[in-house]
Amino acid sequence: MLNIPALEKLVHELSRLPGIGPKTAQRLAYHILKSSENYAGQLSESIKRVQSEVHTCPSCFNYTDRAICKYCEDPHRHNEMLCLVEEPSDIVRIESSGAFRGRYHVLHGVISPLEGITAKDLRIAELVRKIDSGVEGDTPTIKEVIFAFDADLEGDTTSLYLAKILQGKGVKISRIAHGIPMGSDIDFIDDRTMNRALENRVEL
Amino acid sequence: MLNIPALEKLVHELSRLPGIGPKTAQRLAYHILKSSENYAGQLSESIKRVQSEVHTCPSCFNYTDRAICKYCEDPHRHNEMLCLVEEPSDIVRIESSGAFRGRYHVLHGVISPLEGITAKDLRIAELVRKIDSGVEGDTPTIKEVIFAFDADLEGDTTSLYLAKILQGKGVKISRIAHGIPMGSDIDFIDDRTMNRALENRVEL
Repeated sequence: MLNIPALEKLVHELSRLPGIGPKTAQRLAYHILKSSENYAGQLSESIKRVQSEVHTCPSCFNYTDRAICKYCEDPHRHNEMLCLVEEPSDIVRIESSGAFRGRYHVLHGVISPLEGITAKDLRIAELVRKIDSGVEGDTPTIKEVIFAFDADLEGDTTSLYLAKILQGKGVKISRIAHGIPMGSDIDFIDDRTMNRALENRVEL
Repeated sequence: MLNIPALEKLVHELSRLPGIGPKTAQRLAYHILKSSENYAGQLSESIKRVQSEVHTCPSCFNYTDRAICKYCEDPHRHNEMLCLVEEPSDIVRIESSGAFRGRYHVLHGVISPLEGITAKDLRIAELVRKIDSGVEGDTPTIKEVIFAFDADLEGDTTSLYLAKILQGKGVKISRIAHGIPMGSDIDFIDDRTMNRALENRVEL
């Protein structure tokens, strides 16, 4: 349609990004084309650079550009608490709340039979090894593992699977609470959330 | 926040794209980081390539990777009709309707006092020269100029300005119709559109 191979190619590559449809991809491509050579160069360069400089932390599998990530490195974080997340970006979300000062472990996905993702595709063996070895960094045993997955079917499946695997290892297992989001109007809460909120009601 | 300069830089560059907020930019950056080296390389390369290969057509200012764009080159298009558009992407939209077989002229913007874009920043001098020279490609005079701008204040301002400039040059001046979009429910039409639709009613 555009009849310019270089432009069509860019639209194609952009439309492979998540949440970017063909229409948006076209708008972005035109913007890049119209932008300064400097901007296009910087964008192009930073895409290449992020892949060459950033890798996963060998301990928690968060992204880092150093030998070990900043959360594993930090001597002031609690070694007894381990928060399990699906993706490195979830760590950013949790950190911004300021409510957790323990360590992290990134699974890089959740169990999803529909997408063909099984337990073997995730960083579960490394998690078990970490708990079994009884050492996090170079100090005491992990006392509690907190599951912080998305509140959906895949998240629940992964929670159930991991709870079973970690059973009998002497660690407390918990998951972040599901319920009414703060500041929201009860009128607009969906049935499943309301169900979960009632089920998990907290005694006052 | 991310504490990884290469990742932060990519998020920053992505968030400069139109319609991409910091949250989306972060999601895209994580996706690129997670994607295959091959994909990141292709994306990076196609950004550079689009700027080096694609330029504006010297006659109509549409984007092209050839000496002259395909609409200016096509001998089967009518030289008497000239459609004025804001951006090259508008041509793609008009062409897909199949309702226009004339030539194009891209202004590369519209007059917008708020954004400091004046007539001098647009391809208006070239338009006037094209009409005055009386030749489009190598045959007859332009008989009609059709304004196909966005239906907003800037589009209207540009239409008024150009209509004044082109007055007395012997060309018919028109603009695409504003009104109720096809297939839409009268109930949901906003006041300004309804106003315009009544004003521009067509005798049957």
